[in-house]
Amino acid sequence: MITVEEYQEHVLGRVEPLAPRRVPVTEAHGLRLAEDVIAVLAVPPFDNSAMDGFAVRAADLVGASGTAPVALPVDGDVPAGTTRPVTVGPGRAARIMTGAPLPPGADAVVPVELSDQPPGAAALPARVLLRRAPEAGAHVRRRGEDVRPGDVVLGAGTVLGATHLSAAVSAGHGELLVRPRPRVGVLATGDELCPPGVDPGPGRIPDSNSVLVAGLVREAGGEPVPLGSVGDDPEALRAVVAAALPRLDALVTSGGVSVGTKDVVKAALSGELDFTTVAMQPGKPQGFGLLEGRVPVFALPGNPVSVMVSFHVHVAPALRQLVGRPARVPLGTARAAVGWRCPPGRRQYLPVLVDDGPVASVRPAAAGGSGSHLVASLAAAQALAVVAEDVDAVAPGDEVGLLQWP
Amino acid sequence: MITVEEYQEHVLGRVEPLAPRRVPVTEAHGLRLAEDVIAVLAVPPFDNSAMDGFAVRAADLVGASGTAPVALPVDGDVPAGTTRPVTVGPGRAARIMTGAPLPPGADAVVPVELSDQPPGAAALPARVLLRRAPEAGAHVRRRGEDVRPGDVVLGAGTVLGATHLSAAVSAGHGELLVRPRPRVGVLATGDELCPPGVDPGPGRIPDSNSVLVAGLVREAGGEPVPLGSVGDDPEALRAVVAAALPRLDALVTSGGVSVGTKDVVKAALSGELDFTTVAMQPGKPQGFGLLEGRVPVFALPGNPVSVMVSFHVHVAPALRQLVGRPARVPLGTARAAVGWRCPPGRRQYLPVLVDDGPVASVRPAAAGGSGSHLVASLAAAQALAVVAEDVDAVAPGDEVGLLQWP
Repeated sequence: MITVEEYQEHVLGRVEPLAPRRVPVTEAHGLRLAEDVIAVLAVPPFDNSAMDGFAVRAADLVGASGTAPVALPVDGDVPAGTTRPVTVGPGRAARIMTGAPLPPGADAVVPVELSDQPPGAAALPARVLLRRAPEAGAHVRRRGEDVRPGDVVLGAGTVLGATHLSAAVSAGHGELLVRPRPRVGVLATGDELCPPGVDPGPGRIPDSNSVLVAGLVREAGGEPVPLGSVGDDPEALRAVVAAALPRLDALVTSGGVSVGTKDVVKAALSGELDFTTVAMQPGKPQGFGLLEGRVPVFALPGNPVSVMVSFHVHVAPALRQLVGRPARVPLGTARAAVGWRCPPGRRQYLPVLVDDGPVASVRPAAAGGSGSHLVASLAAAQALAVVAEDVDAVAPGDEVGLLQWP
Repeated sequence: MITVEEYQEHVLGRVEPLAPRRVPVTEAHGLRLAEDVIAVLAVPPFDNSAMDGFAVRAADLVGASGTAPVALPVDGDVPAGTTRPVTVGPGRAARIMTGAPLPPGADAVVPVELSDQPPGAAALPARVLLRRAPEAGAHVRRRGEDVRPGDVVLGAGTVLGATHLSAAVSAGHGELLVRPRPRVGVLATGDELCPPGVDPGPGRIPDSNSVLVAGLVREAGGEPVPLGSVGDDPEALRAVVAAALPRLDALVTSGGVSVGTKDVVKAALSGELDFTTVAMQPGKPQGFGLLEGRVPVFALPGNPVSVMVSFHVHVAPALRQLVGRPARVPLGTARAAVGWRCPPGRRQYLPVLVDDGPVASVRPAAAGGSGSHLVASLAAAQALAVVAEDVDAVAPGDEVGLLQWP
């Protein structure tokens, strides 16, 4: 039996970060930037109007006011998106839309609300009465006033949310170099498994591990690739894995790794994976290795609570390492609200409910204690309490470790 | 001009929650349960072995120990998934796998590690030496000891994570009644828009609003349906909307709602939507209505900061209402770390950076102040500071409202 740390070191020492990939901005939401994003375009890319109104020369409106409006002839429309705006000569104006390029000659915009013209669609007037004397630059957005080409818009490591993507697009980018979401195969094993929602009949049980692992993968930032379940037939398992391998960055199996006579994962993959026992409860039997020197495979025990604990303790750190993040996250601490028993010589990971407070207080999610088969009560668990190998009982008030996930 | 509250009331009064939908468990991750989940199966569904080992009658092993092992003849194997387990007669044993049904006659399991047999695949022995006197029930999981048929496994309203789905499957379910993720059409408008990553050329800008709104929809729990962008052509806009409508639960447009002469959304949809001005900055011009009496349409202004603010203030509450959650979330409070100016008569929503502390401290995300075109600095914003209509300047230390999102 090896320690949890020895096993983690064994696993993490063999997991390489995935190569960054260039993806369209529409597929980059939630992913982590692998390089700084440098502005290609200025933002705004050209001087433009901040309002619907009239483009003018400020010098022509000195003294204009509500009681002394100034009339200017209107030489044309400047819509947004125009490529050839009219020129505004001395003593003249052009009607302009929000976002449209400031026409040559003009240096300010007077909003339509400060004119004698109606807002919205209307025929182009021959002349306009303006009730404001703008300063030069009024209601004009200057080219590059937000971002200049060459500015760093987003830093490497940013997890891309909606506003980050918007900024990258405005700065001229259509694709971004990101850490891809790991594609993680999910395979349950055992003759006893039947699909969800089907009457299992005598001796059989529904395959709850496939949705469990797929969900845990998604919650850890990966993309689950469901591979269904296979029975206790090593050949069938090898065939499923071989077919899926090219499109996987990692694989998680459940079941078939213990000391039974029909442990199918062990039988099928003992040449490629190392099977060992780890000093933890639950989750003692574990298998790990690289297939084709590239795809890390986690062969977890079959019990749902063991699956959940093994995932958080061994798989989630490796998935973080695959996307270039720190694999290890420090444990929190909590106080035990009640006492419970612990297995001698093994580190205990106990699903718990957490009462937040100045110090978090925890109690077992399963009223019955630390049994590893308490599937339904698992649903309520909010974290894992972590108890050292040399502790055989936790008393109320004792400090314990706390493993939480996002 | 109407108040923010009047406009919110107008919108929320017309948005009906989506009907719950029954979906496969594999598609239910992250969705909200619309009813309690009641166990159909017991968990475990039958008495079964918690260990790989030998099924026995406890009475036959009284006094067995390491120094005084007891030999029993072995009558067969009981693998997991078997439907016809061998019967264990008095003074006899059967080899059994983890999860296999406890065979008739047996009342306890002795782990293989406490026998003279090797773990793993091996020929069935004729007899086994056992070094432990088990109590009746040892290493036996009893039918229903975790969940009994009829037990409530998950409560209505639960947001389904990996462990919830696993529990539902174990309790016999293959589908769950959930609030579906709203499918939200995303449509940008304006002749000046060109696709991300393409050189926009004179007078044109990249369409940054489509990725912005799609990302905001996803962050608010909806499923964006990208509809691209249309130019300033009301007929084209009507055609795109009509084609998409059957597969939408809501629609968000950006641009074309102001007082310009070419405001395309206004021109195309003024029969179906109400266009109004709301006393807020940014985001004054807004349009809203139901298409075909069913699909709420949010016509937002085109500026990215206005889009982002309008989304959080008007769209996100409606999306929450669509999935049956409380639409309104209470504002937090924060202290201004620096001062800034506010528009008279309009409620200000200012993108800010937040320094957490006993009291959150905020400062404008854009160094330049409250301009609504600061696309790139928007990326850094962590929340919106909310300042009342009658305030014309915030001083350092003033208390402001704080609108945050998950």
